Amino acid sequence: MQIARIVGSVVSTQKDEGLLDRKLLVCQVHDHQGAPKDQYVVAVDAVGAGLGDLVLTAAGSSARQTTITKDKPCDAVVMAIIDSWDVDGTNVYEKWSE
Amino acid sequence: MQIARIVGSVVSTQKDEGLLDRKLLVCQVHDHQGAPKDQYVVAVDAVGAGLGDLVLTAAGSSARQTTITKDKPCDAVVMAIIDSWDVDGTNVYEKWSE
Amino acid sequence: MQIARIVGSVVSTQKDEGLLDRKLLVCQVHDHQGAPKDQYVVAVDAVGAGLGDLVLTAAGSSARQTTITKDKPCDAVVMAIIDSWDVDGTNVYEKWSE
Amino acid sequence: MQIARIVGSVVSTQKDEGLLDRKLLVCQVHDHQGAPKDQYVVAVDAVGAGLGDLVLTAAGSSARQTTITKDKPCDAVVMAIIDSWDVDGTNVYEKWSE
Amino acid sequence: MQIARIVGSVVSTQKDEGLLDRKLLVCQVHDHQGAPKDQYVVAVDAVGAGLGDLVLTAAGSSARQTTITKDKPCDAVVMAIIDSWDVDGTNVYEKWSE
Repeated sequence: MQIARIVGSVVSTQKDEGLLDRKLLVCQVHDHQGAPKDQYVVAVDAVGAGLGDLVLTAAGSSARQTTITKDKPCDAVVMAIIDSWDVDGTNVYEKWSE
Repeated sequence: MQIARIVGSVVSTQKDEGLLDRKLLVCQVHDHQGAPKDQYVVAVDAVGAGLGDLVLTAAGSSARQTTITKDKPCDAVVMAIIDSWDVDGTNVYEKWSE
Repeated sequence: MQIARIVGSVVSTQKDEGLLDRKLLVCQVHDHQGAPKDQYVVAVDAVGAGLGDLVLTAAGSSARQTTITKDKPCDAVVMAIIDSWDVDGTNVYEKWSE
Repeated sequence: MQIARIVGSVVSTQKDEGLLDRKLLVCQVHDHQGAPKDQYVVAVDAVGAGLGDLVLTAAGSSARQTTITKDKPCDAVVMAIIDSWDVDGTNVYEKWSE
Repeated sequence: MQIARIVGSVVSTQKDEGLLDRKLLVCQVHDHQGAPKDQYVVAVDAVGAGLGDLVLTAAGSSARQTTITKDKPCDAVVMAIIDSWDVDGTNVYEKWSE
């Protein structure tokens, strides 16, 4: 999985019928130290994530292993909202202290 | 999914029989700010997209989760035409204002 | 799919039994303007492609969706020979004018 | 598979129900000479790995081929703890000599 | 598939039970002209390859399409030992002339 921040959303009325009513989130990938990268993915939301949340995204066929994305032409899913993470014993991010 | 603009098409008469009569679109990948990247993918059209449209493409096995691409040797599909998207509260693209 | 030119082939007698008698083609990836990239893939031929042909390659599990590659340890397949393609209304490549 | 060192972990209470109670590890990818790369992956632990361990990670659908990750929206798994490895006849890493 | 040379091996006693007794090879990726790249993959051996052999590796779900790797958390497999290959009509590599 990749760490990403939800920075926006995509509106599409003409899309595969399997994805009607699905939120399409613009997710900016972050490195493991919490710095934003020049890389993004548009992902379907499976956990009720909102703008600004740091999340985990899963890619490929794994993105279809949720009730919402099963058998859909979707190659990226937000499958977790991050509360916190640490690297080398140091807290990198704490949701509630933002 | 990736954001891409349809910039052309590929003609092929000698191809896997599962893909006969399928439109093969040349899609230039764009970043999440709407700038074109030096990266492209040739994708099968599943939503009736046309030249110049900004679309979403799905890759890998997820590209086969449409009626048109099911069980076909196709690793990229256009599965949505973008109406608009926004990043950090700012509208990046609006189809009808182009 | 990626655009590639077939530039060579690989000979292997000691390989997975599912791939005996399969042609293994060295394919140099091209960008969407037709310029060769410093990137290649070795792919199984599913359409009778020959040296010098510009083709489309499919990767990953999609590479196994042909009669020839089904259930084989093969992650890239040549699934179309390109006749022509255009970008931004300009013809980039025409097979018969080469 | 990639060689990686476990450098941290991610805490998430709001995640896909299939991944409740699963440890999410921050894994920094290493090159084959043992040097850390500026690349990471968040992976589910399937072998009881701990902070500082050098491990192998598997990606994509292969990450779901463990009892713990089966049918889960998980695209990376720690599936081995490395005891040692060698390159060109030289020992690069020995767990018990660290 | 990618061209790679087997440069080493990984020892792991604590790994997914599906991969017990499987050889884990460190494979350095080569370009199509035979030059080593700064890229590697750890792959399961399915063809009896040895140190120094030039081989083909398959990635992703295709890596599980051998008797040895079926349903295993393995995303790379050595599925062919290369005898020779040529590019642009020139022999790049000949196993028996090394």
